[in-house]
Amino acid sequence: MSKRVVTFGEIMLRLAPEGYNRFLQAQSFGAVYGGGEANVAVSLAQLGLDAAYITKLPAHELGQAAVNTLRAVGVDTGGIIRGGDRIGIYFFERGASQRPSKVIYDRANSAFALSKAEEYDWERIFEEADWFHLTGITPALSEELARVSIEAVKTAKRLGLTVSCDINYRAKLWDKATAGRVMSEILSNTDIYIGGRGQAEDLFGIRAELKSEDDYDAYKPVAEELVRRFGLKKVSITLRTTVSSDRNKWAALLYDGKNHFISREYDISIVDRVGGGDSFAAGLIYALEEGMNTRSAVEFAAAASCLKLTVEGDANFVTADEVKALAFGSGSAQVQR
Amino acid sequence: MSKRVVTFGEIMLRLAPEGYNRFLQAQSFGAVYGGGEANVAVSLAQLGLDAAYITKLPAHELGQAAVNTLRAVGVDTGGIIRGGDRIGIYFFERGASQRPSKVIYDRANSAFALSKAEEYDWERIFEEADWFHLTGITPALSEELARVSIEAVKTAKRLGLTVSCDINYRAKLWDKATAGRVMSEILSNTDIYIGGRGQAEDLFGIRAELKSEDDYDAYKPVAEELVRRFGLKKVSITLRTTVSSDRNKWAALLYDGKNHFISREYDISIVDRVGGGDSFAAGLIYALEEGMNTRSAVEFAAAASCLKLTVEGDANFVTADEVKALAFGSGSAQVQR
Amino acid sequence: MSKRVVTFGEIMLRLAPEGYNRFLQAQSFGAVYGGGEANVAVSLAQLGLDAAYITKLPAHELGQAAVNTLRAVGVDTGGIIRGGDRIGIYFFERGASQRPSKVIYDRANSAFALSKAEEYDWERIFEEADWFHLTGITPALSEELARVSIEAVKTAKRLGLTVSCDINYRAKLWDKATAGRVMSEILSNTDIYIGGRGQAEDLFGIRAELKSEDDYDAYKPVAEELVRRFGLKKVSITLRTTVSSDRNKWAALLYDGKNHFISREYDISIVDRVGGGDSFAAGLIYALEEGMNTRSAVEFAAAASCLKLTVEGDANFVTADEVKALAFGSGSAQVQR
Amino acid sequence: MSKRVVTFGEIMLRLAPEGYNRFLQAQSFGAVYGGGEANVAVSLAQLGLDAAYITKLPAHELGQAAVNTLRAVGVDTGGIIRGGDRIGIYFFERGASQRPSKVIYDRANSAFALSKAEEYDWERIFEEADWFHLTGITPALSEELARVSIEAVKTAKRLGLTVSCDINYRAKLWDKATAGRVMSEILSNTDIYIGGRGQAEDLFGIRAELKSEDDYDAYKPVAEELVRRFGLKKVSITLRTTVSSDRNKWAALLYDGKNHFISREYDISIVDRVGGGDSFAAGLIYALEEGMNTRSAVEFAAAASCLKLTVEGDANFVTADEVKALAFGSGSAQVQR
Amino acid sequence: MSKRVVTFGEIMLRLAPEGYNRFLQAQSFGAVYGGGEANVAVSLAQLGLDAAYITKLPAHELGQAAVNTLRAVGVDTGGIIRGGDRIGIYFFERGASQRPSKVIYDRANSAFALSKAEEYDWERIFEEADWFHLTGITPALSEELARVSIEAVKTAKRLGLTVSCDINYRAKLWDKATAGRVMSEILSNTDIYIGGRGQAEDLFGIRAELKSEDDYDAYKPVAEELVRRFGLKKVSITLRTTVSSDRNKWAALLYDGKNHFISREYDISIVDRVGGGDSFAAGLIYALEEGMNTRSAVEFAAAASCLKLTVEGDANFVTADEVKALAFGSGSAQVQR
Amino acid sequence: MSKRVVTFGEIMLRLAPEGYNRFLQAQSFGAVYGGGEANVAVSLAQLGLDAAYITKLPAHELGQAAVNTLRAVGVDTGGIIRGGDRIGIYFFERGASQRPSKVIYDRANSAFALSKAEEYDWERIFEEADWFHLTGITPALSEELARVSIEAVKTAKRLGLTVSCDINYRAKLWDKATAGRVMSEILSNTDIYIGGRGQAEDLFGIRAELKSEDDYDAYKPVAEELVRRFGLKKVSITLRTTVSSDRNKWAALLYDGKNHFISREYDISIVDRVGGGDSFAAGLIYALEEGMNTRSAVEFAAAASCLKLTVEGDANFVTADEVKALAFGSGSAQVQR
Repeated sequence: MSKRVVTFGEIMLRLAPEGYNRFLQAQSFGAVYGGGEANVAVSLAQLGLDAAYITKLPAHELGQAAVNTLRAVGVDTGGIIRGGDRIGIYFFERGASQRPSKVIYDRANSAFALSKAEEYDWERIFEEADWFHLTGITPALSEELARVSIEAVKTAKRLGLTVSCDINYRAKLWDKATAGRVMSEILSNTDIYIGGRGQAEDLFGIRAELKSEDDYDAYKPVAEELVRRFGLKKVSITLRTTVSSDRNKWAALLYDGKNHFISREYDISIVDRVGGGDSFAAGLIYALEEGMNTRSAVEFAAAASCLKLTVEGDANFVTADEVKALAFGSGSAQVQR
Repeated sequence: MSKRVVTFGEIMLRLAPEGYNRFLQAQSFGAVYGGGEANVAVSLAQLGLDAAYITKLPAHELGQAAVNTLRAVGVDTGGIIRGGDRIGIYFFERGASQRPSKVIYDRANSAFALSKAEEYDWERIFEEADWFHLTGITPALSEELARVSIEAVKTAKRLGLTVSCDINYRAKLWDKATAGRVMSEILSNTDIYIGGRGQAEDLFGIRAELKSEDDYDAYKPVAEELVRRFGLKKVSITLRTTVSSDRNKWAALLYDGKNHFISREYDISIVDRVGGGDSFAAGLIYALEEGMNTRSAVEFAAAASCLKLTVEGDANFVTADEVKALAFGSGSAQVQR
Repeated sequence: MSKRVVTFGEIMLRLAPEGYNRFLQAQSFGAVYGGGEANVAVSLAQLGLDAAYITKLPAHELGQAAVNTLRAVGVDTGGIIRGGDRIGIYFFERGASQRPSKVIYDRANSAFALSKAEEYDWERIFEEADWFHLTGITPALSEELARVSIEAVKTAKRLGLTVSCDINYRAKLWDKATAGRVMSEILSNTDIYIGGRGQAEDLFGIRAELKSEDDYDAYKPVAEELVRRFGLKKVSITLRTTVSSDRNKWAALLYDGKNHFISREYDISIVDRVGGGDSFAAGLIYALEEGMNTRSAVEFAAAASCLKLTVEGDANFVTADEVKALAFGSGSAQVQR
Repeated sequence: MSKRVVTFGEIMLRLAPEGYNRFLQAQSFGAVYGGGEANVAVSLAQLGLDAAYITKLPAHELGQAAVNTLRAVGVDTGGIIRGGDRIGIYFFERGASQRPSKVIYDRANSAFALSKAEEYDWERIFEEADWFHLTGITPALSEELARVSIEAVKTAKRLGLTVSCDINYRAKLWDKATAGRVMSEILSNTDIYIGGRGQAEDLFGIRAELKSEDDYDAYKPVAEELVRRFGLKKVSITLRTTVSSDRNKWAALLYDGKNHFISREYDISIVDRVGGGDSFAAGLIYALEEGMNTRSAVEFAAAASCLKLTVEGDANFVTADEVKALAFGSGSAQVQR
Repeated sequence: MSKRVVTFGEIMLRLAPEGYNRFLQAQSFGAVYGGGEANVAVSLAQLGLDAAYITKLPAHELGQAAVNTLRAVGVDTGGIIRGGDRIGIYFFERGASQRPSKVIYDRANSAFALSKAEEYDWERIFEEADWFHLTGITPALSEELARVSIEAVKTAKRLGLTVSCDINYRAKLWDKATAGRVMSEILSNTDIYIGGRGQAEDLFGIRAELKSEDDYDAYKPVAEELVRRFGLKKVSITLRTTVSSDRNKWAALLYDGKNHFISREYDISIVDRVGGGDSFAAGLIYALEEGMNTRSAVEFAAAASCLKLTVEGDANFVTADEVKALAFGSGSAQVQR
Repeated sequence: MSKRVVTFGEIMLRLAPEGYNRFLQAQSFGAVYGGGEANVAVSLAQLGLDAAYITKLPAHELGQAAVNTLRAVGVDTGGIIRGGDRIGIYFFERGASQRPSKVIYDRANSAFALSKAEEYDWERIFEEADWFHLTGITPALSEELARVSIEAVKTAKRLGLTVSCDINYRAKLWDKATAGRVMSEILSNTDIYIGGRGQAEDLFGIRAELKSEDDYDAYKPVAEELVRRFGLKKVSITLRTTVSSDRNKWAALLYDGKNHFISREYDISIVDRVGGGDSFAAGLIYALEEGMNTRSAVEFAAAASCLKLTVEGDANFVTADEVKALAFGSGSAQVQR
């Protein structure tokens, strides 16, 4: 079994007004193709792992452009199903200072959202893979995709893959009760839990009692309860503090069932805030696949996501050496000549 | 009754790769908002008429941007219904020479396509108006909109408005039988027919027996048959010849029930080929509203659409003086200082 | 009497080198149309009020483009006079960090600057309006416009409109003595005074004795003295601290004759520093027109101008909901999905 | 006396919407600095002559940017007077096909237009120069500049310089009677006449009796009459035919008092139509300064202006070798590797 | 043996001023990665064949960007050697009308040009391949690469691959005698000869006696002599006529040892003239791999290269269906909706 | 002897992805021409000194573009040698926050790097000059250029010029031993030493014993030892602290053999970090040429480099007045109207 990571989800066309223009001011939109799981795949491929991405995309040129985006960085797109009518779209308006970023989703009825269970042959998809990653967005897109997601993690577990799941709870996509039920079943088949600060509370009522916004220790009991409840092997919680649209603080906690490690905290001037969590997931998967210990893994993953926020687009265009230089090196921001 | 023209249809977000980039090469998309009937309204307002536009658009910023585009040039947007989820989108790849332009439509399930008959109060909409213009695209979008369109033209006729209809038959949107039936009913309540070369044949089997591509006289019997069949007052047929993606020839025929007039033929280096027919319709409506005779009207309308093809975007940014200078003046392309 | 606000002044073509290019490096200029009172009108229209804008613009395309900019967001441009030769221009070089922004004005001899008293029929202009807003720039442009401004505020008062005036003293446009005399006469017919930190001192010698730059209480006696001297109903003073070209602190004081309220202070990473005061004026007018109390009004106005500094261009592209979310809500800069 | 050419006139900031956008669609303007005589100087410097340019420009950054534009290509700007308030501006909308290009001038009250005779010390300016070139635009800008122009050509003649004058009659700048009188006095002190097709008729009533638009021989008697009337040494007439905004035909006639030579005719797909005549003048001056015979000179000048129309901006960015390759070489448009 | 085509050569960073800017006017350069053989690989992959590309590229990000460009469209880059210092660069200035395009090469000392024979293991490279394509540029880059090229074609022949060679003679890269000797040895191991009009004469003195520029029959004896001399299976000659920088005519001849077929002639408005020959080669290889007969193959290849000239960049972004529609269909340039 | 400064070194084409794009994301590169000594010349010319620049550049258009860049701001380029094949290139990726900027050099084998001693006639070059400036980059480019640099400083000293040298040690360009030996010989002929924080230690083992990063006093003994060792007249050390890629602190120390002065410290939001040291050198040279005392000189130079970091490109586009306003004025970043 080689180090091959399979991810599964929806890749969308992201359209963003240039610079700080608001939607009402835009005369053009920068276009990239991204989505939670695709961002993980793109990041993993650039970190140096064998990454495969499973989705469904229309046969037309916009679907092809999404495929090409993935292939360019070396993601294996051989398992992508082609068909259906439309690619999901999301419009992204970049915020600034006190003005928040804004997203208009136009993803309903996409080829992926309408895809069917019988289109995915998980046994074949998982051949030669040792890791499967998904997020809580995919099961939220349709009841069918919720069933598909559960089937996927169960198959993965049965075949001996490590399963990681990024909670990514979006209240607008599904109701809390359904989400809690489906995610519980998925997490029961998951090894590595990844989630943002409040998500365990939102979905499962597991609340961190914060003394202050940077009271990161407060998340330790949350991680422990998650392990207890779902039989997880590791729990990671990303600790983002939104100082403003331009500035975030970022750290992360990783609990391996025995010990908790909290990474350095980064104070970040943001270039593009999208994909922070995805780059963390990719960093964590890479670190664990490479055999790093818990402390190193959380540092690597946090540094990877710190760098993501300094890179344009949804996906993390950084190498493992760049991440290591930040995570374990001097962290100097001097020019590299 | 003042000279106020009401148009009704769908305005979409058009996304086009910059320059001659193909979809697969696009890293950004130029954005304009347009659609057949909206283009007519925009053109009419800039020619100097009072133009109102009726549609349904989502309440979010992309819907608002479409409204702002219309308001900027003076279109009355007071009758636009706000609601629903999405604005229709179309992707436009500009062709060149032997490579044809390409359109990917993503307009299904738009706020307008899902709008209902009861949302439109035609009596109120037509207050103070003397002209109603629609196209064959709107009734093709849903059975509901077919009913709405028929109701609209009937109400318009009853209230004494002049009704113009641009056939704009799109085989991908509806089947021929339905189209023929619905359009027949609409045309039976129409005064001014506007259509491209082959559309009377496509829809109604009224065929022009061309001796050569520029045998424009061959369309005279077509016009006469259309008048006979639907009781029309005037029939105009636009005579586009696609020499290449960059070059079109353009002329038009106008039949007023007695006489046929064929405009000058323009040999055009194209800047943006979209909206040629719409600018013709607007030119014709303006000319007739202004009381031009048949000969002048067809020259004005043909000149208007010639100029449109030299202007970026869906809509015709020209003034009546500019059109007249081309239609009736020296037609010099020397710099105007 | 409906809630209709009339503003009066000059709208100019603003030409700004792209990004951080200096004038000497510019190969292109971004173009928007703006000016103090126009910015107020644009902001009011987007906040949701009925806003009319009075000016004079040349009949050519650049004048039309200014009109279209205003119409796009719903400003009533029906009262704009067309004629004259040129539109005023200003060139704006965006500063950065310790490098200040720079403006080169080229506004002399504009259509507006040369316009005459007899071109403005204030009684007709104020029909159906309940508020008139002007700034100290307009009377500075010519002796004629000083007379026109005085006539305008007197007519407005006589007709029962609320009058607001943003001092906006520009030492380069007129001498202090004239400015003091004219502005005194205007303020004597004004209800709501709006001014920056040092302007009461510059024009009228009313000095704030600051203990430190953020000693905002020191402006309370200034406000009181202004009320005393001119019989104003309310005095607002914007409290901008220029930390650097990229970073400003922003707060405001509003005195209603009885109580002083000082808003929250915002620490702002600036996208475009132009129009901060104008957006404050618009925010204040909106808040008072909507019936907010003094405390809420100053918070709303300060939040509006904070958001303006995060938006490209002269004018404030924000909705009342967005302002309220910042002024009265959690103020989170998290992505709004 | 070295080969040094002095030119004198106004350089303006040209602002042009990107691509084929109309003024009403422009969100940015490309910026170059140009003007008839400046274009000649820029072209001469790049052809390899010593070229000096005399004008007056404001001391601010836009004036400096104009100076830098000239210095970049090696024009001697040491004689440029700095002072005054504004630089002249012209807005240029690029036409296409049947849609003509459009210019909005905003040059009144520029530093140059308001400059005074005493600011120009022609004896010092002409030190070391052997050629003086001016155009009919400068004397049209003010009565003062008409006097200055006459003084300049008289001084140049007295000091033994060759004087060339490009008629460039602009009916909007001055009335025909004044123009005729002033230009007659200038031409009486001129050696080399340069003018477009109809200009001798417009100004002096010397009419070509054309049998067809390409009846270039019809201009021979015009040239002869000009020599007779003003005692000129050489007369050149540029023969532009405006097929469309995108396509011009271009040839030229040169009469040396004995023989007429008509150059090859070029059929040109236009990139930027501005500065065609200026590049011709520069080509002619260069050719004559280099000692080419009449036939070669007109071919060189015509080829230079043909190339100009394929180059962006006002000025001709071509080398003498490139012009010679077109004028006298194979004229191949194959890639030069 | 599957249908897998191996190509071998140098991919460079192409830097081109935007639009029609000359090098001296460029403030930015559009960047694509291309080169003769890489363009063939990119085109083949998009036509639908399995295409592998062999080269050497530096390990740094520019080398990686070239790899990503190839991977994006599906080219197999697994055989690319990474190492060395620099990627070859060429600067491309787009010509217009009578002004020719210009190339400045900066390719000396590239990683590829300095690569060594022992870095290429041809037996391994050709595993599973059935076709090998190279051009005359590679052996011109160094004596070592000449030896490598000869070894490659000999190995390919020995292993039973079809070998195609595009002559692409560049007089600046090597002297004629060496070129003639090396290319003779390569062609003696080649099945399919591809060359431009004059190249057989330039290299081997085989001259076409043209009666006029479109006397394509004159190339038939050339093709026959090439077959005789080198034992080729097929000879194709591309017939480009450079009307101007913007307009080329394009046709091609294919001789299969028995019959000659000359394709339709295309009159093309050019978007990007680079890569015409490469797209022809790719079209021909695809057609022959797909089993088309001689007549169809030359039509397909000519249509492919016609379309290339309408596409931005070095490489041909078209599908086999698009080529077939032009080669064998109606060839309509109407919008494809 | 007038105030004329000669600088000598390599000017390169800098290619930088737009905005924050990484190399792998770049579809275009912004282009400027710069290099250490050229940046000094450009800055000096804009500050108002007579600046001459000596280098070797290829005769092609890219070499010419570099010359034009220098001429535009008034640098004397008369001494530039034209010839050779290529211009050095460097690719610059702008960092952000924790992500460092990155440079890929492609400068080997440039026309300058291969230039020969006999091409430089220093006696002629130094005619009328009173100052010579070079950096430690030039002698690192080749052994020949090391010899040329030594010859240049010796000739300059012999002719009585002031010599300044910016250490600029680049470990990748040459080994430490050679660098130490060559730079020692150069510094023995130098009056003004300019260097960054650690460079005296790197090259000569003269170590500052810092108690903290802002313990600027620790550099005083370093300056004293440099004076002792090389007989320098003045030593300046720039004190940059790289807080992040977007934010630097900047101060400087100047020791005149008697007294040490440390400038104000600037906390800078960076627009373009390249050329900070060069702008400091230019500021220092200007200040000393203008006769400022040590304290003023270091304040002027530090302010100049602070402003540079707020300006796009390699070179400092600021005037002496702007620097003085920051160094000695209120330092306000308010808009300058």
